[in-house]
Amino acid sequence: MSNPVTSYNPAETSNLLSGKDEVKGTKVYSPAGDDLGHIDDVMIDAASGKVVYGVLEFGGFLGLGSDYHLIPFGKLRYDHARHGYVTDLTKAQLEGAPAYSDDWRTNRDWQQRNYDHYGLPPYWI
Amino acid sequence: MSNPVTSYNPAETSNLLSGKDEVKGTKVYSPAGDDLGHIDDVMIDAASGKVVYGVLEFGGFLGLGSDYHLIPFGKLRYDHARHGYVTDLTKAQLEGAPAYSDDWRTNRDWQQRNYDHYGLPPYWI
Repeated sequence: MSNPVTSYNPAETSNLLSGKDEVKGTKVYSPAGDDLGHIDDVMIDAASGKVVYGVLEFGGFLGLGSDYHLIPFGKLRYDHARHGYVTDLTKAQLEGAPAYSDDWRTNRDWQQRNYDHYGLPPYWI
Repeated sequence: MSNPVTSYNPAETSNLLSGKDEVKGTKVYSPAGDDLGHIDDVMIDAASGKVVYGVLEFGGFLGLGSDYHLIPFGKLRYDHARHGYVTDLTKAQLEGAPAYSDDWRTNRDWQQRNYDHYGLPPYWI
């Protein structure tokens, strides 16, 4: 049996996204088509099974000097035609996001400020 | 700035799972500790942002002869102590699951039978 995921025909419209093929490394664009970077990872809330953040990587070369942003997944819309995500976030919004704290994965205050920055209710509410 | 995801200290308890570190390649165990395989991928419902399937790979060598099963993500519980998922599914249940159809990503009948097999309501209800 072949890998069921890679045997997927991307010409079909589907609302299921594969972590390997349509998340990791997938480009992120502005509505105008500007390249904002790519998705490096996703963060999943174990309790609900929801993807709560896409980790956007942009800038840098071979991982040197790259910058990462935890973006609420609801701000990313997969566009099958572009094989990428489209977001209405601006570069200014990304650059103005709260700086990482080492404990961001467990720091509710930091997560709250990050969601506030992007104008969305946090995932645990 | 270092990669925010890999800078995570796994000794902390967190209910956020990284796709790179705690999904892809992560072992799946029975409650008794038997090795059932590992997670090869996840399938995310674009509309809701929910992880609806974990793709369990087991058997085979270097991908030859491996078998894949689409398991409802709710059947997988991440265990930080084991750095793996624990499921109460049995090997017999996995082996008895519906065979893949080429159009499983868009075939609601197939998906319904798969969820029925695992005794869970499907993700779109």
